[in-house]
Amino acid sequence: MSKLSHINSRGEASMVDVTDKAVSQRTAWAEGYIRMSAHTLQMISAGEHAKGDVFAVARIAGIQAAKQTASLIPLCHPLMLSKVQLDFELEPKHSRVRVIAMCKLAGQTGVEMEALTAVSVAALTLFDMCKAVDPAMVIEGIRVLEKHGGKTGHWQAGELA
Amino acid sequence: MSKLSHINSRGEASMVDVTDKAVSQRTAWAEGYIRMSAHTLQMISAGEHAKGDVFAVARIAGIQAAKQTASLIPLCHPLMLSKVQLDFELEPKHSRVRVIAMCKLAGQTGVEMEALTAVSVAALTLFDMCKAVDPAMVIEGIRVLEKHGGKTGHWQAGELA
Amino acid sequence: MSKLSHINSRGEASMVDVTDKAVSQRTAWAEGYIRMSAHTLQMISAGEHAKGDVFAVARIAGIQAAKQTASLIPLCHPLMLSKVQLDFELEPKHSRVRVIAMCKLAGQTGVEMEALTAVSVAALTLFDMCKAVDPAMVIEGIRVLEKHGGKTGHWQAGELA
Amino acid sequence: MSKLSHINSRGEASMVDVTDKAVSQRTAWAEGYIRMSAHTLQMISAGEHAKGDVFAVARIAGIQAAKQTASLIPLCHPLMLSKVQLDFELEPKHSRVRVIAMCKLAGQTGVEMEALTAVSVAALTLFDMCKAVDPAMVIEGIRVLEKHGGKTGHWQAGELA
Amino acid sequence: MSKLSHINSRGEASMVDVTDKAVSQRTAWAEGYIRMSAHTLQMISAGEHAKGDVFAVARIAGIQAAKQTASLIPLCHPLMLSKVQLDFELEPKHSRVRVIAMCKLAGQTGVEMEALTAVSVAALTLFDMCKAVDPAMVIEGIRVLEKHGGKTGHWQAGELA
Amino acid sequence: MSKLSHINSRGEASMVDVTDKAVSQRTAWAEGYIRMSAHTLQMISAGEHAKGDVFAVARIAGIQAAKQTASLIPLCHPLMLSKVQLDFELEPKHSRVRVIAMCKLAGQTGVEMEALTAVSVAALTLFDMCKAVDPAMVIEGIRVLEKHGGKTGHWQAGELA
Repeated sequence: MSKLSHINSRGEASMVDVTDKAVSQRTAWAEGYIRMSAHTLQMISAGEHAKGDVFAVARIAGIQAAKQTASLIPLCHPLMLSKVQLDFELEPKHSRVRVIAMCKLAGQTGVEMEALTAVSVAALTLFDMCKAVDPAMVIEGIRVLEKHGGKTGHWQAGELA
Repeated sequence: MSKLSHINSRGEASMVDVTDKAVSQRTAWAEGYIRMSAHTLQMISAGEHAKGDVFAVARIAGIQAAKQTASLIPLCHPLMLSKVQLDFELEPKHSRVRVIAMCKLAGQTGVEMEALTAVSVAALTLFDMCKAVDPAMVIEGIRVLEKHGGKTGHWQAGELA
Repeated sequence: MSKLSHINSRGEASMVDVTDKAVSQRTAWAEGYIRMSAHTLQMISAGEHAKGDVFAVARIAGIQAAKQTASLIPLCHPLMLSKVQLDFELEPKHSRVRVIAMCKLAGQTGVEMEALTAVSVAALTLFDMCKAVDPAMVIEGIRVLEKHGGKTGHWQAGELA
Repeated sequence: MSKLSHINSRGEASMVDVTDKAVSQRTAWAEGYIRMSAHTLQMISAGEHAKGDVFAVARIAGIQAAKQTASLIPLCHPLMLSKVQLDFELEPKHSRVRVIAMCKLAGQTGVEMEALTAVSVAALTLFDMCKAVDPAMVIEGIRVLEKHGGKTGHWQAGELA
Repeated sequence: MSKLSHINSRGEASMVDVTDKAVSQRTAWAEGYIRMSAHTLQMISAGEHAKGDVFAVARIAGIQAAKQTASLIPLCHPLMLSKVQLDFELEPKHSRVRVIAMCKLAGQTGVEMEALTAVSVAALTLFDMCKAVDPAMVIEGIRVLEKHGGKTGHWQAGELA
Repeated sequence: MSKLSHINSRGEASMVDVTDKAVSQRTAWAEGYIRMSAHTLQMISAGEHAKGDVFAVARIAGIQAAKQTASLIPLCHPLMLSKVQLDFELEPKHSRVRVIAMCKLAGQTGVEMEALTAVSVAALTLFDMCKAVDPAMVIEGIRVLEKHGGKTGHWQAGELA
């Protein structure tokens, strides 16, 4: 594709017209990371209690954000997500938490923005809960991992450069 | 500080009580990057028209998101931001766009989450507008740069590791 | 059914995947009550004027809330309600107002949460309008009355214990 | 007080003018119950995992709803809550869960509607998570327990009739 | 004033920084009209019942919209309105309804956008309720009538040209 | 049609039941104007920079508002718009800007309220950006231009009286 789909020939923002696109089942996975001090990572991973709510709050924030994508990203279409899933993986070796989101629906447009929004807001929520002890955290590596469905069919990300 | 401020002693999510905190002027700067192919970067930076609306849309999305922070991040307090500013810098050498957000208010709690949310949603909006030509973009390096005001006073980020 | 549908095997919150569920017409009725002093009940029921706007405001609040259910209840799916109806019945013998809501759509998931949310917010709105004269009101008996459609078919509540 | 504060002399809905009211610290507590089968209560209370996320989700939903009160209840003023707290108590003897919410701010108007909204939405969220196993649950006893601050000063509920 | 306050020297959208502006009591009045056929006007004005709910719904929609102004108008600041009032006047001679809104707060920025938004959404709501019988209605004459407070002090509109 | 579709026989607000309406492709166009001083019109139209962002901000505000219609207009159904387009035409002869919106979807109910809401909020956004230099602007002539689809088929507005 040689043109920006969201900018018309006059350079104006333009929502893509999906009226005539076929309804197909679409799934997208996205990931991201929040890097923190080893001490902070230990605080949120050690102890059953702390662990429970920290990730539960971030999971709910991510799910809720996925449903709000069209009101956050101006040119996104309103969608009826049929499934949103958020997972967290501790990576003590890299002193970070991996956030993975999956979004699904049967619709006329892809759901990668919903998955990316879920990852971003879940990571921001983890940042919020840890910022008092570790204001220097960094959110990184937010990208689409894989998507299925629609005209483009299957797409998979390569290795992260 | 040795405890997570947003988790109580039973491990439950807990909004910090700011009722008795003094009102002071608070400012926070955050940054982030969206890395894309050289070709995509050129598409959004070359030509007066394209450039105009692409960044205008991302700027508006970031400003609007900053105002919605308390409804996106569960334990954030509702705030009355008195200023939100979004800037974009093209870094062709690194094939990326830098997003910088500044938030300000006179209030009882800091505004770094608002600045981080503005950066994240502005970057997601750029992703949305370019994803048809470049689905492999990566959002990275989202962090607080500097903040002023409140009990902690001035804080500045170090070099990005 | 022997498991909580909204909690996975690791104990984590989980949105039910409705992607493959058949679209069917679904209807749900819910009810609830707000109990108040006889004097308060008379204030909102006597006089054509007062009666008009008090219930009109509560009705609108209930309809609007039904449409916001997915942003209020974290694991609810976004839905496109095709009908929401709110009714109010004065029960002077029990010194209370009965609130009944009906929600309908053709979709992949039931609408009882939408009907319950409509009842709850309509009752809260009545509480808000009367609280200056009667702060001791009680909202009670919020439950699903009946639902049609979907795999479970028809379900009807028994007598309230 | 002998008139409905939210209805003017023509019977029209009317937001109370709080422009000239003094700013004072205000706190409100509200409670409510969700009654369920003994089996359902056991499912959400037994086992560390299940318990964690079920109540964490309801807590977050309640906190988020408190912050949205002014957009749910038409005549409520927008407020800047400085603290929202949600607690859950298992009452196996009555086969129910008690939900308690506390809201606080320094402002010109009370926060009992915010506390009642938090209780209501937290109870609805518990209902949502358990409805597949127990559709006959009942939400009841939603009321203000106590409030401080403002012109009326201290108010405390009596015994529930 | 010789420059657009909301566009910076690079032509970019810019939220005005109100951090250092004094808090003062501010009030704004706005008006607008919805012109319809004589028959439609009669339908919504004759008969106690119809009249009641038609204007009650539009009033609530206007009040709710005023509170949402900052999320609708990108460069508006979040505000804590202390009063919103909507009035409707039937003007059978001109076959139209006049909508008047008043907004008030003690704050750092004016409330004319809130009053204009209330008028606009109330008029749109009247349009929605009457569109099946009269799709040719026109909304017109939306403007600020008067405002008080802030650095500019008192401002009053002239005759409508 | 001889009755108001949104008011039932008891005079109560009533959402139209669209459950059984056929899904068809529906399109609506709406227009409106914002009249300003010749000087203000020149400020927003002269110079590439200013022009760029002023209209880009209004366009985004209009698109976002179209997607929020069901939460602004109480009796509107939630919809999944497949396309929203906003255009602006400078009319120096009449010292005004024309705003045109087009909304589209395949659904059970028309989209004229979405198009009217887009026009209204885009015009309000232009008002907001110019109000410091020209508080006497007037928004006028908001109406439906044309609509296709559904049972009524094609409808076109006549000359503006």
